Amino acid sequence: MPHAYDELPRTPANFVPLSPLSYLARTAMIYPTRTAIIHGERHLSWQQTYARCRQFADQLTKLGIGKNDTVSTLLPNIPAMLEAHFAVPMTGAVLNTINTRLDANTIAFILQHAESKVLLVDPEFVPVAREALAQLSQAALEKDSAEQNNSEQSSSKQSIVVIDVADSEWQGADDRIGELEYESWIAQGNPEFDWQLPSDEWNAISLNYTSGTTGNPKGVVYHHRGAYLNAASNLLAWGMPPHSTYLWTLPLFHCNGWCFPWSMAANAGTSVCLRKVEPVKIFELIARYKVGYFCGAPIVHNMLINTPEHERVPVNHQVQAMVAGAAPPAAIIEGMARLGFNITHTYGLTETYGPAALCAKQDDWAALDIASQAERNSRQGVPYHLQDAMRVLDPQTMQPVPNDGQTLGEIMFRGNIVMKGYLKNPQATQEVFAGGWFHSGDLAVAHSDGYAKITDRSKDVIISGGENISSLEVEEALYRHPAILTAAVVAKPDDKWQEVPCAFVELKKGHEHTSIDELLAHCRQHLAKFKVPKDIIVSEIPKTSTGKLQKFVLRDWLKQGKTSA
Amino acid sequence: MPHAYDELPRTPANFVPLSPLSYLARTAMIYPTRTAIIHGERHLSWQQTYARCRQFADQLTKLGIGKNDTVSTLLPNIPAMLEAHFAVPMTGAVLNTINTRLDANTIAFILQHAESKVLLVDPEFVPVAREALAQLSQAALEKDSAEQNNSEQSSSKQSIVVIDVADSEWQGADDRIGELEYESWIAQGNPEFDWQLPSDEWNAISLNYTSGTTGNPKGVVYHHRGAYLNAASNLLAWGMPPHSTYLWTLPLFHCNGWCFPWSMAANAGTSVCLRKVEPVKIFELIARYKVGYFCGAPIVHNMLINTPEHERVPVNHQVQAMVAGAAPPAAIIEGMARLGFNITHTYGLTETYGPAALCAKQDDWAALDIASQAERNSRQGVPYHLQDAMRVLDPQTMQPVPNDGQTLGEIMFRGNIVMKGYLKNPQATQEVFAGGWFHSGDLAVAHSDGYAKITDRSKDVIISGGENISSLEVEEALYRHPAILTAAVVAKPDDKWQEVPCAFVELKKGHEHTSIDELLAHCRQHLAKFKVPKDIIVSEIPKTSTGKLQKFVLRDWLKQGKTSA
Repeated sequence: MPHAYDELPRTPANFVPLSPLSYLARTAMIYPTRTAIIHGERHLSWQQTYARCRQFADQLTKLGIGKNDTVSTLLPNIPAMLEAHFAVPMTGAVLNTINTRLDANTIAFILQHAESKVLLVDPEFVPVAREALAQLSQAALEKDSAEQNNSEQSSSKQSIVVIDVADSEWQGADDRIGELEYESWIAQGNPEFDWQLPSDEWNAISLNYTSGTTGNPKGVVYHHRGAYLNAASNLLAWGMPPHSTYLWTLPLFHCNGWCFPWSMAANAGTSVCLRKVEPVKIFELIARYKVGYFCGAPIVHNMLINTPEHERVPVNHQVQAMVAGAAPPAAIIEGMARLGFNITHTYGLTETYGPAALCAKQDDWAALDIASQAERNSRQGVPYHLQDAMRVLDPQTMQPVPNDGQTLGEIMFRGNIVMKGYLKNPQATQEVFAGGWFHSGDLAVAHSDGYAKITDRSKDVIISGGENISSLEVEEALYRHPAILTAAVVAKPDDKWQEVPCAFVELKKGHEHTSIDELLAHCRQHLAKFKVPKDIIVSEIPKTSTGKLQKFVLRDWLKQGKTSA
Repeated sequence: MPHAYDELPRTPANFVPLSPLSYLARTAMIYPTRTAIIHGERHLSWQQTYARCRQFADQLTKLGIGKNDTVSTLLPNIPAMLEAHFAVPMTGAVLNTINTRLDANTIAFILQHAESKVLLVDPEFVPVAREALAQLSQAALEKDSAEQNNSEQSSSKQSIVVIDVADSEWQGADDRIGELEYESWIAQGNPEFDWQLPSDEWNAISLNYTSGTTGNPKGVVYHHRGAYLNAASNLLAWGMPPHSTYLWTLPLFHCNGWCFPWSMAANAGTSVCLRKVEPVKIFELIARYKVGYFCGAPIVHNMLINTPEHERVPVNHQVQAMVAGAAPPAAIIEGMARLGFNITHTYGLTETYGPAALCAKQDDWAALDIASQAERNSRQGVPYHLQDAMRVLDPQTMQPVPNDGQTLGEIMFRGNIVMKGYLKNPQATQEVFAGGWFHSGDLAVAHSDGYAKITDRSKDVIISGGENISSLEVEEALYRHPAILTAAVVAKPDDKWQEVPCAFVELKKGHEHTSIDELLAHCRQHLAKFKVPKDIIVSEIPKTSTGKLQKFVLRDWLKQGKTSA
């Protein structure tokens, strides 16, 4: 017989699936007239936003979209993109925000793999969308042709409804491909559409493809429970007060904007849209709307730091900036601090809903000089409030490495802010969850205070004469030189040492004449001899759409014998 | 075949039961040296607190305590009480914090009903505990005697291990009954005890008995999921920044201190203990430790408001005070504002983990005069951030009442911040969850902005000549008179009108000579004629241990013909 304590079942009164959709409904009810979204001169209240999301969801439902259907987007950070974060899951469907910087090939792969039924496209991305859709049709035709003998087989042509989002702030050509235009289409929807919470909080809410440096991207599935919890966790990590104003410097297609569309609904705050990352515009919007918060990869912060003072609109209020997406060199954290922006360094991966760890600041850091503070703050740190655990484990034994700042292990996560799994890829899912932990692939040490510090991606370690060299350490040394804008260090094959470090660097404006010898001398001053790059190559460095440096391209260049730009 | 999105199961890597125990482990790891608890001159860090909780849990385990065993306490707001909120659930057991103001009869009932296996007692409550335990033995003896013919029946004597908590701040007699003393007992435990999260987030974490004005109290069971979510929700409701300092004016035995022991762990903040609610001491502690936050029933706030200025230590920083536990008259909210304390009005019941709704402030209220602000703020408002819904429903049709500020309905909750159910009382559980909503028993209207406003407890409505009179409205009118300290209005049987309102009042110091006629004239000025009390009786008003006025006692007095103190 069950114990009396166990005889009290879940009922509709005391158990409701966790879903970020609840945040929107609550905020629209309590703060109907507060501004939810600012885009150009357009202001949308929470009531309007909720009504528009319901119209959008109603229209999707009329198209036959429902549970587990995929709705894809090729959109910048505009209202329709924020609205999709609510409208799509309201129907039970799954939101797939495609990285707008991808090529047509990859987009076609994603649309096919995700079995997308709807695609929303901004005019800026119509050309690439057109190409991707054409590829998809071509592939389907070829498939049909190959299977023509099988009469029972229906046409494999994937039918995708394309919806053009004629954004008011887009200044290019009014290129369209779809039969429907977003604004007039949703206007036909019911603003009181009776949407439902998911039947289970474990249901999929979104699908984010990894930026995969090699091979096909993997489809990372998020669920309602995780999205709900990480949205709240963002607020706790920042101690974000209600009604904060947030600027969308971070692409919404990247891990659902690190879950911030949902955080801002929970916060009853204001989202300021931004089609494109332009530093001058960013300073202008921060000043105009008293923006208190923004996020971005290190490259965004780097652009702000390197904006000449005369181009910046002065900002006289406190701004909180979150940096993640790649380990930021101490120089960037230090630079932002000098700008007067308070940096919170978070860490995570697509598989952890964006940030799932933060470098929690300690009181006694305030007494340190700014460079030492930045050094402390450049670590990946500790788990997020609502993430159960992040540890540096030996991937062989699954035991924690000692907190000695030396022993290399792999960062692993466990908790509710870890993806549901990879779509249609049970093997990869099983591998990455082996031993009951999510394996991040990031190599790290644990410091004496328990904070994790990434030394490298597994594949980025340079093994030279049997010694491991952290490419990050070499990059950090380079960043300390005043001429360096960007630095990427990779392994170069070497007959004697197997591998040697090779640096690619971009120089700041006005520093174009810095000599390689000067940079090498600087490195010798800051690094052990075996870690000093054997070559330093000045060149523009290829970046992924999320601002990560594409080291695999640099390695290809080296194989092809490239030695200068 | 399941859809690909549904083929991604929960694994130990991506699913961890929600439990507030995770907050403690995380904070102890990240902020080991920060102060967790202050009690007199004693300061305990989070590392120490975590170690003590693990020792405590280890010792409980050695006593055989495990899943679903009940551990009861008769403790004031001291460190052992906070520690019990973590140590007990670490073992899988259920924490039952008994209201220390209860009589021995009721305590004996609770210990028996909860099948408590351990009781922690502060010396202040040893006399009542001794009596309760004696009653329990006596009852068991009688039961055994009655069943003596049944030889297979083992003794029904409930074996309770009693642990004395010899609190350092207790200044009375060192009275003890147990075999064990808390400090020396936990010192024998393992500070690295390997506790486990609950196997299921639906497992019971605590048991809180309602203060039940009539009949036996009901045992309200909380689960780990709800405790985790409401602890986070408290932080969001207050926009509480990390590392806040919180003063324990609210009894920890009341709804687990509204879940704030767990909130403070999530916040990595500091709890300042307080054995007894003494206004002078409260002002002193607020000033000394720069306390930023405290909670309490209206009576606590009333005491602070009525503390003469020369007895108050001046407070020069912003203090946030949360009021709940009973609908606060506008006069109290206004009084606190005049004191310079910022009031957040929350609402809830034992069944909703304490506060599960708040009167969310709107920007445009700031332009109103203080009385109008207080009036807006005296409403029960809207659901908590992580509570799914609170609505005023017609209990017959279960449809929402119109937002007209007139139509009476019942406040109902739905969501994860609703109890698991009543222990060993399936009928009451079923009744209170009827129709998929938790029925609060509070009658309310919905205002045009959707905010709920309690008009009365169902049983507190006075029905006079067919008209409903809200006792609360009459009380609010009385509170507006400068002489009134406390007011309670109840129905008095009347031959002509069936019922008439009768007021019991306490007068402020220096106002003892206010005449009944003056008070009646004041009521006639502020109330419709039929709502003016037929009698006003000056008397001390009996209160429950949580500060609620015991109207059932007043009704008894009236039946017995009482007309004055």
